[in-house]
Amino acid sequence: MVRHTLEYPKDIHNTVNRYKHQAVYSLTTIHTFINTTPVLHANTNLHKVSFSPSPEDPFPVILPLIGQMGSFSRPSASLGDPLECYLHGYVSSRIMNLSRASGGKGLPICIAASKVDGLVLTLTPNSHNYNYRSAVLFGHATLVEDLDEKLWAMELITNSVVPDRWRHTRLPPNAAEMQSTQILRVKIDSGSAKVREGVPNDEKGDLGNKEVLGSVWTGVLPLYEQFGEPVPGPYNEVAEIPAHVLEYRESLNKRNFEYAGAAARKDAPVKKKEPGEED
Amino acid sequence: MVRHTLEYPKDIHNTVNRYKHQAVYSLTTIHTFINTTPVLHANTNLHKVSFSPSPEDPFPVILPLIGQMGSFSRPSASLGDPLECYLHGYVSSRIMNLSRASGGKGLPICIAASKVDGLVLTLTPNSHNYNYRSAVLFGHATLVEDLDEKLWAMELITNSVVPDRWRHTRLPPNAAEMQSTQILRVKIDSGSAKVREGVPNDEKGDLGNKEVLGSVWTGVLPLYEQFGEPVPGPYNEVAEIPAHVLEYRESLNKRNFEYAGAAARKDAPVKKKEPGEED
Repeated sequence: MVRHTLEYPKDIHNTVNRYKHQAVYSLTTIHTFINTTPVLHANTNLHKVSFSPSPEDPFPVILPLIGQMGSFSRPSASLGDPLECYLHGYVSSRIMNLSRASGGKGLPICIAASKVDGLVLTLTPNSHNYNYRSAVLFGHATLVEDLDEKLWAMELITNSVVPDRWRHTRLPPNAAEMQSTQILRVKIDSGSAKVREGVPNDEKGDLGNKEVLGSVWTGVLPLYEQFGEPVPGPYNEVAEIPAHVLEYRESLNKRNFEYAGAAARKDAPVKKKEPGEED
Repeated sequence: MVRHTLEYPKDIHNTVNRYKHQAVYSLTTIHTFINTTPVLHANTNLHKVSFSPSPEDPFPVILPLIGQMGSFSRPSASLGDPLECYLHGYVSSRIMNLSRASGGKGLPICIAASKVDGLVLTLTPNSHNYNYRSAVLFGHATLVEDLDEKLWAMELITNSVVPDRWRHTRLPPNAAEMQSTQILRVKIDSGSAKVREGVPNDEKGDLGNKEVLGSVWTGVLPLYEQFGEPVPGPYNEVAEIPAHVLEYRESLNKRNFEYAGAAARKDAPVKKKEPGEED
């Protein structure tokens, strides 16, 4: 039985208007990318809500946050299912207060994740490109007040840093820790992603220019994140580095290395201009 | 002679209110970090300006962009001097139109860069941390209309992808390329950065718990970006990979590896709670 692939419907927020051939609306793709990005960027119209430092404040604010897609009501949901985004961040008190104050639907928020997978070096400056993945989600954020959901989200987020880390730490969090941790649940309205992978592509005019072809090196420089050797801390008393750390290191290093290398060798994306598409 | 180190003055936008001991206002630190981040995130209050798709649109929007600090009027300026941020991005036409329409001071914009340098694995979920660097700039964006400045900024941005790449490509850009490229110049109002580096630090209560200390591995897993082997493209005719590519690959790989490794071994930051500081 073929399972349907869910996509976010295109609306005025998430529709990609430029390089539409690179646009992806698949829930699986977008959620996977959010979940494998160590730092997300979120912004919100602080000045629109009562806790703004100044009502005349013209600036939007971007905060780096840790986040993870999941479903508290259906923990077995897959990455291709509708999910919420749970956020935990350092610069959180302002945004948390705003969420509390916003009431009702929650605080409108945009969440972004981007990763460069390679430098695409072409004949001309203008054709230079990145192999990259980027995703954006739009939704409404509210503070998680339910203790069970909060504890579940804390485990979800801790295990996103290193899979299976949660149960290898001192548990459960004490009352002070539960109190000081604040989690936002973002109900997702829409989202989209853009992905570029492949070899360089230049314009026809330059490809026909023998002098240029003979003098400019073209190709891809793959770029990927790697974990180094684990460095035990000053008060560590566990001699052996645990399997959940070593296995994650090995699998992430392999996955990142292979992704960037494969992206560097794929066929170049074919740009098809659609009616109404911007240049 | 000692040179003064310039800092962004603290204002309501850029002041770090949480983990103040990690806050950095030095122009050199912030500009260097912006310049070494391959993708920046910028946002702007689209709905506040006339080109918004809907006046009722509640969502802020985050765009991934390439950017670089520089000074067109004083190209010899160092990273510690006041600089502008030049932005070039794929999803640019909407933001470019907004900038054009905003007139006067320009479009209020926030630019963010974040990088994780290591996972800091501690005794409790709550003490887990990243070694990381993040920077944020606030400013006003206007479209670069002057052709000389535009060409200068294109060279600046191309050479930020690979140093010295510009002069190794087919030059100059033709009229169509100049026309299709749009660059934003952001006059910076303020900025700040946050940096965490060092070994794990746990709470005293857990450090005194022998059972916890004997069962939970603590340490840092350094995380850093590396370039793989250059992959020549399908129409490349230059047999030898050029020195500007090879040298950049080698220097970036070395710098990233060393930074993350050193950060994993430094003393843990000492958190000093200041009067009025949030938890």
